[in-house]
Amino acid sequence: MAEAKIRAAIVGYGNLGRSAEKLLAQAPDMELVGVFSRRDSLDTDAPVWSTDDFAAKAEAKEFDVALLCLGSATDMPSLAPEYAKHASTVDTYDNHNDVPRHYEAMDAAAKAAGTVAIVSTGWDPGMFSLNRVYAQALLPGGEQRTFWGPGLSQGHSDAVRRVEGVKKGVQYTLPDETALDKARNRQAADLTGYNTHARQVFIVLEEGADAEAIKKEIREMPDYFAPYENVEINVIDEETFDAEHTGMPHGGHVITAGDTGGFNHTIEYVLKLERNPDFTAAVQIAYARAAHRLKEQGQSGAFTVLEVAPYLISPTPLTDLIARDV
Amino acid sequence: MAEAKIRAAIVGYGNLGRSAEKLLAQAPDMELVGVFSRRDSLDTDAPVWSTDDFAAKAEAKEFDVALLCLGSATDMPSLAPEYAKHASTVDTYDNHNDVPRHYEAMDAAAKAAGTVAIVSTGWDPGMFSLNRVYAQALLPGGEQRTFWGPGLSQGHSDAVRRVEGVKKGVQYTLPDETALDKARNRQAADLTGYNTHARQVFIVLEEGADAEAIKKEIREMPDYFAPYENVEINVIDEETFDAEHTGMPHGGHVITAGDTGGFNHTIEYVLKLERNPDFTAAVQIAYARAAHRLKEQGQSGAFTVLEVAPYLISPTPLTDLIARDV
Repeated sequence: MAEAKIRAAIVGYGNLGRSAEKLLAQAPDMELVGVFSRRDSLDTDAPVWSTDDFAAKAEAKEFDVALLCLGSATDMPSLAPEYAKHASTVDTYDNHNDVPRHYEAMDAAAKAAGTVAIVSTGWDPGMFSLNRVYAQALLPGGEQRTFWGPGLSQGHSDAVRRVEGVKKGVQYTLPDETALDKARNRQAADLTGYNTHARQVFIVLEEGADAEAIKKEIREMPDYFAPYENVEINVIDEETFDAEHTGMPHGGHVITAGDTGGFNHTIEYVLKLERNPDFTAAVQIAYARAAHRLKEQGQSGAFTVLEVAPYLISPTPLTDLIARDV
Repeated sequence: MAEAKIRAAIVGYGNLGRSAEKLLAQAPDMELVGVFSRRDSLDTDAPVWSTDDFAAKAEAKEFDVALLCLGSATDMPSLAPEYAKHASTVDTYDNHNDVPRHYEAMDAAAKAAGTVAIVSTGWDPGMFSLNRVYAQALLPGGEQRTFWGPGLSQGHSDAVRRVEGVKKGVQYTLPDETALDKARNRQAADLTGYNTHARQVFIVLEEGADAEAIKKEIREMPDYFAPYENVEINVIDEETFDAEHTGMPHGGHVITAGDTGGFNHTIEYVLKLERNPDFTAAVQIAYARAAHRLKEQGQSGAFTVLEVAPYLISPTPLTDLIARDV
């Protein structure tokens, strides 16, 4: 008899939610049972449930785990703990500095409810966090650097699009090849986040907008662009933009180099992703599997990816993994 | 008050044991308290203990965890379960096909004794196993390949040196660059273990040995060389050998590429190691930390790296890891 599939619900139906829907169909041991949304109708064949009914659906055990596909800016910090009071959840909260606070809030909610909340999955935070911790544990005192791209930066693209006179805009982050090599050879001491990456902007202007003024405004934007050594801003026409700049590629490198007494050792983890929300959803789905299993084991509370034993995210049984992959 | 350091003992004092001794001195939270050996005296400043006294030293709680630095050929399978009956252990058993049997034997010994045995750490098995499992869990149905090198293969070097007339010999394994690119782009279907790697041999001959006969014997050695498409055998003089071929570099790639509906995603984990036993020992030490912590948590039995939550191998407290690395 086949084991029952893990019944997943999606909360929120933006890019991430749609990727999660697509990839749940590829998961051998999981199924999508419903999409919670604040909207009345969605372009999906899955059952659409009102977010107002989350507690009732959870109470009625209509799903096992909820994939919170909410924006990190405001929805996730305010809403996620409410969901964790009723069901096991897995989120992709990516505001790095705020993760400890979010983890505590989710832990309190999940412990009180007897649910499991896995927080900040995805690839950074997520797989990159894991690799930072693994590599530092192996090479204590080693030099570690994270590089992002080549890829579309959602936050920086949003910032560019908020500039008045910008009709369409994207921002790509590109790691500097020389910087990558320095990191691999423990020569990264002089590297900062500001000289290891180039930021490349493509914008389409509203009619009559002042290109030079807009370029200047972007270049001088605090935090986003001002501190970076290498910023390139390209004004292009709308046709070119639509043809070449609507994909969502991303990726990056975590490079750790350490010395063991005259011998250099380099650990490098590289992601090349043609569609960022797809890969983020792929990680989220794997940790949804783990959340359900931890709950079934009788655990409760919040977990980061650092606290989840690797085999728990795999659809393959442990004994098969040991025989095949160890 | 500083927490007490984890007291590690080393069993076996070959290349791996000596690397473990060197690297334990770099571990902020561990200390080496003794080296168990069958030999009376070793070239070490650490206390040297007879392996006959292992049970008594364990009983007297003179150490917390034993790093088994034994050969995988015969010592590890026969001796490791005996050690696990008395103390928590961490080993680097690398006979992939035999890991399930070893795991069961260690589990029985460790469960009966209330100890923890972490098996098959190192980098392959070990970190590569972890990365195979993580990547397959994220990209189910993806294509996965492991490449080794450029690096010295111990097993193949030993095989070369067993050939009569060979005075000194090493074998380097080199991944094929074209094969690496194929694996990154899901074009690896036609790749086998035999056409993805070149095997490069350097030998010094005994006086009067027949070079052509020896080359033929190596080339036709079953399993080791016969099935490989690209084997290069170089006869060199002893001076060159001693100058250029006494290092122990190694490394490799685990490449996983998966499709999410028209979009390719590549996960690549790369190790470049200037000294193979140093890195193997570094992994073993990190998992020794985890073995001790699992034991302190009241757990017992055998664990593979797949079953150990990542934070348990880090010297840094979990709350600091969450704040720094997630």
